[in-house]
Amino acid sequence: MLPERTVERLSEYRRTLLRKLSEGTTHIHSHSLASMHGITAVQVRRDLMLIGFSSDNKKGYNVSELIDFISSILDSQSVIGVAVVGMGRLATAITSYFNGKRSKMRIVAAFDNDPDKIGREIASIPVYPIDEFAEQCKRLSVRIALLTLPAKAIDGIRHIIDASPVEGVLNFTSKPFTPAEGSDIYVEDYDIITLLEKVAYFIKDDDIS
Amino acid sequence: MLPERTVERLSEYRRTLLRKLSEGTTHIHSHSLASMHGITAVQVRRDLMLIGFSSDNKKGYNVSELIDFISSILDSQSVIGVAVVGMGRLATAITSYFNGKRSKMRIVAAFDNDPDKIGREIASIPVYPIDEFAEQCKRLSVRIALLTLPAKAIDGIRHIIDASPVEGVLNFTSKPFTPAEGSDIYVEDYDIITLLEKVAYFIKDDDIS
Repeated sequence: MLPERTVERLSEYRRTLLRKLSEGTTHIHSHSLASMHGITAVQVRRDLMLIGFSSDNKKGYNVSELIDFISSILDSQSVIGVAVVGMGRLATAITSYFNGKRSKMRIVAAFDNDPDKIGREIASIPVYPIDEFAEQCKRLSVRIALLTLPAKAIDGIRHIIDASPVEGVLNFTSKPFTPAEGSDIYVEDYDIITLLEKVAYFIKDDDIS
Repeated sequence: MLPERTVERLSEYRRTLLRKLSEGTTHIHSHSLASMHGITAVQVRRDLMLIGFSSDNKKGYNVSELIDFISSILDSQSVIGVAVVGMGRLATAITSYFNGKRSKMRIVAAFDNDPDKIGREIASIPVYPIDEFAEQCKRLSVRIALLTLPAKAIDGIRHIIDASPVEGVLNFTSKPFTPAEGSDIYVEDYDIITLLEKVAYFIKDDDIS
């Protein structure tokens, strides 16, 4: 299994490569790819060595080949269904942004406890009541849950996730998601406040120097 | 300066500690804090050692003292103004979520080129035309810009950011933000797709094992 940071960078390289390809670029050097991501060429070469991609070409990496290679590492064979839990503004924005961008993952269902939302389609996906979670996830081949519900509701959702076919959780609430003991659900906690605090810390330090 | 990952974890510890404090917890052991974040107690102790916080107390860390200590490391003395560039759905969701949660940072202005948005308040903040960016940022003490505009618009925004007092950029578009050469703007590129692809990779691997 690759290190988490390598996986993140591969995803970012692929996104850049797809854009370059659409702009007509056929080859790219490691230092160009590196500078577009604010990292060193050594780092790029190390990441690609780790997945077994090499290029002797003087023109640099073949963009199209590298995209396919990264895709063979990152992507699942079949489409992975993603479910949203808590269909508020953030979830609506994410769903609209995400769907259609990646063919190997798709947000297919939303769950909420608001009677005004249940039974409707929001951002073109159907909203189900939360007590149908396991049943609908099974039916729709959902393997990832995206948590965008209020932080105080997260403890109540744990047993619902654990009793479902969901294998991975991407948690956008401000409270970490802890799966039940013994569960091997992969969790990525993610809070926008952390990122803003990080930026603030690093610009704050500029003052001192 | 602390490592980036340490800063992220300190921000996350503080959020957990604030919640525990509000629930009446006065002391917490490193292993409890660790398990709430899915990391080891050694990691927690190492992070706190790095900022010079120590606790000999058998009851664990004093929650309130630790919050104050982390805040003295992370927070700026004065409130940091944040500006949003591209006031769409994601920006509206983030602004509503963020404002009021942290006293040391505040989203104070939004910029857009849509005449229907300019001059209005969205999520309780005023929307200005993009050509007033430098002027308004100066007036409102904005030091961080949050980019939520379409990826294709990001190249056009570079010189506007560079000509403004902005010192830090949090970029939510799918294209990396590269400041002008010689600029010392701190950039954090962040794309939700990367996180989803990461979760997908780690659950995909479960299949093989």
